[in-house]
Amino acid sequence: MSDKLVQPLNPPRRVLMGPGPSDTHARVLAMLGAPTVGHLDPYFLTVMNEVQGMLREVFETKNEMTLAVSGTGSAGMETCVVNLIEPGDKMIVCINGVFGGRMADVAERAGAQVVKLERPFGEVFSADEIAAAVKQHNPKVLGIVHAETSTGALQPLEEISKVVHAAGCLLLTDCVTSLGGVPVKVDDWQLDAVYSGTQKCLSCPPGLAPVTFSARAVEVIEKRKTKVRSWYLDMSMVRNYWGQSRAYHHTAPINMNYAIHEALRLVLEEGLTARHARHKRNHGALKAGLKAMGIEYAVAEGFQLPMLNAVLIPAGADDVAVRSQLLNEFGIEIGGGLGPMKGKTWRIGLMGETAQPRNVLAFLAALDKCLLDQKVNLPSGAGVAAANAFYRGA
Amino acid sequence: MSDKLVQPLNPPRRVLMGPGPSDTHARVLAMLGAPTVGHLDPYFLTVMNEVQGMLREVFETKNEMTLAVSGTGSAGMETCVVNLIEPGDKMIVCINGVFGGRMADVAERAGAQVVKLERPFGEVFSADEIAAAVKQHNPKVLGIVHAETSTGALQPLEEISKVVHAAGCLLLTDCVTSLGGVPVKVDDWQLDAVYSGTQKCLSCPPGLAPVTFSARAVEVIEKRKTKVRSWYLDMSMVRNYWGQSRAYHHTAPINMNYAIHEALRLVLEEGLTARHARHKRNHGALKAGLKAMGIEYAVAEGFQLPMLNAVLIPAGADDVAVRSQLLNEFGIEIGGGLGPMKGKTWRIGLMGETAQPRNVLAFLAALDKCLLDQKVNLPSGAGVAAANAFYRGA
Repeated sequence: MSDKLVQPLNPPRRVLMGPGPSDTHARVLAMLGAPTVGHLDPYFLTVMNEVQGMLREVFETKNEMTLAVSGTGSAGMETCVVNLIEPGDKMIVCINGVFGGRMADVAERAGAQVVKLERPFGEVFSADEIAAAVKQHNPKVLGIVHAETSTGALQPLEEISKVVHAAGCLLLTDCVTSLGGVPVKVDDWQLDAVYSGTQKCLSCPPGLAPVTFSARAVEVIEKRKTKVRSWYLDMSMVRNYWGQSRAYHHTAPINMNYAIHEALRLVLEEGLTARHARHKRNHGALKAGLKAMGIEYAVAEGFQLPMLNAVLIPAGADDVAVRSQLLNEFGIEIGGGLGPMKGKTWRIGLMGETAQPRNVLAFLAALDKCLLDQKVNLPSGAGVAAANAFYRGA
Repeated sequence: MSDKLVQPLNPPRRVLMGPGPSDTHARVLAMLGAPTVGHLDPYFLTVMNEVQGMLREVFETKNEMTLAVSGTGSAGMETCVVNLIEPGDKMIVCINGVFGGRMADVAERAGAQVVKLERPFGEVFSADEIAAAVKQHNPKVLGIVHAETSTGALQPLEEISKVVHAAGCLLLTDCVTSLGGVPVKVDDWQLDAVYSGTQKCLSCPPGLAPVTFSARAVEVIEKRKTKVRSWYLDMSMVRNYWGQSRAYHHTAPINMNYAIHEALRLVLEEGLTARHARHKRNHGALKAGLKAMGIEYAVAEGFQLPMLNAVLIPAGADDVAVRSQLLNEFGIEIGGGLGPMKGKTWRIGLMGETAQPRNVLAFLAALDKCLLDQKVNLPSGAGVAAANAFYRGA
């Protein structure tokens, strides 16, 4: 036996109000700890079928190639890019935050000739500028982020999809943070390759990346002349394991698939419409509270993500000190700014299970104390009062 | 609410005696369901440090770059290959089973100029032929599988390591199935890049891939002229998240890291020497039992894996029927043959928690009934008698 054994874990109970992971329902955690079965056990194959079926409901799609990639959200990004791109293919990547930048990096590594279309962090792209770009560059794929977790901006996709398809181009979208919190209408909007993560508005621990590919995208994959650069993420093989032939590819993360199964059941029990409304309502209350405390959003009205509230750190408040106090004194996690927003913004998540009035109120009340402790001038109590007025419909 | 909600899961309790996943300890499952914290929470950073420390103990290494990749074993394979290989680099891949073949495929996708050194399935490589091959081809990397899960063959590595290093080449080894079941002495044997999986002899559900890189390998990574083809698996970035700077890369699978933490604690509580001896003892009993039933191993004496017993399906037995009966009547999972061994072998796993006398005896007794039901001629009861004689030291 080892001389100095590591002690058992005893994770603290946090309220996860950062950019993800979000709070998980007790039913999801319980299912995560259910007995492991084999990856080719007939029981597990049923689990996979049901996960696929429920993912199609949540993505609002009939796409056959819909499944959970065995990695976190960024593996979903890589999956979508490497399966559509062959060396030399042209891809436009829209960059208005960290995740657009990441997508360009992934695409370059996949051998794409990347054209970067850039916007300042926090802004979104118009269909007109996208139309001009696809006309000028005639790319195979255009990649864009639906919900930029680094900035808190929501990118409308419906009009962009029309101009991208009019140019004969495929549309690849990052819906990591949006899925389950705002509508993601894959079929209506004709999105060709979409990836998400489990740990945002689906409220499942991180570890899987839901993806879906349109028939157009599948045709492009089937007509590839070169092998996908990643063996692990090669959908032409992964699809056989998730499909009828059940050909072994890699050993799926069994218990993570139990967990997403239960998380998706919770999403569909609530219903997408009710779930989106719940996110919107709690966002409204948080926003009313923050406004009453004199705290401004980093993103323009109309483009603010309900599940990720990026706000400017108020003058006089120490970024790290406030976040540490929230965590250590109240067990509340919020996120700091990412990339160029570091030290300038806080990112307050209201994702999935986290989007509850009790969390909004507890956060506003706790932030009130943290700011007072830092001698920031604010009307103490005003945040909670405004949020409760919002909840009461006043 | 959806019209027809999917019912909650209720996974059956299996005895996992296939090629992995293996049985998990109740403590590991319980930890898997512990409350999720954030991926940058100071608590989680401690978890990561402890996982790294315990992985170093299990790998018997001081390698700084030792961590759990956020994917299953095959993602570990891809991680080792794509980080060491740049386009045009020469790599020898030793193929004597499905996983060697997979490694060659992964290496080609990474841009390697692959030289395949082949042996019939079930055989192993000699240091002499490896010496001749590295002399002839002068590759940057030689890749070889320590425990071929497809064939049940154990590849000795110590002598091979000497000839590979004498030729100035890096040694990359697949220890997915071996780690925790037989010695994997990374430092003593001077292995340069090693990957494993959680769901074999570490007895944790699938979802993470422990990897370790020697100082020589790290130097090669640091001197790369091109970016690693996979963003997700790029160790030059992943190392910063696991290292001092804690720079965000991707969101780690939090609960899976809790689980491996507990699984590694169990390994070290038992001690590596005792654990290896336990695998050997139960393998011995199983082998005695199978021999008494007239069932032969597919791999020559001296090279048989203790944790994965590949045996020839006895004449008159229907492969699928027997495995289905074992699963449905007794809840015991064993594996079928993979690749060219399909329909010819069974793969009986005794990995980690599964390697217990009760499982060996239950399996031999259940197989006895399945073969009798198929009218296979065998001395009923002889398997259990021989195994018990072995356990009693008779």
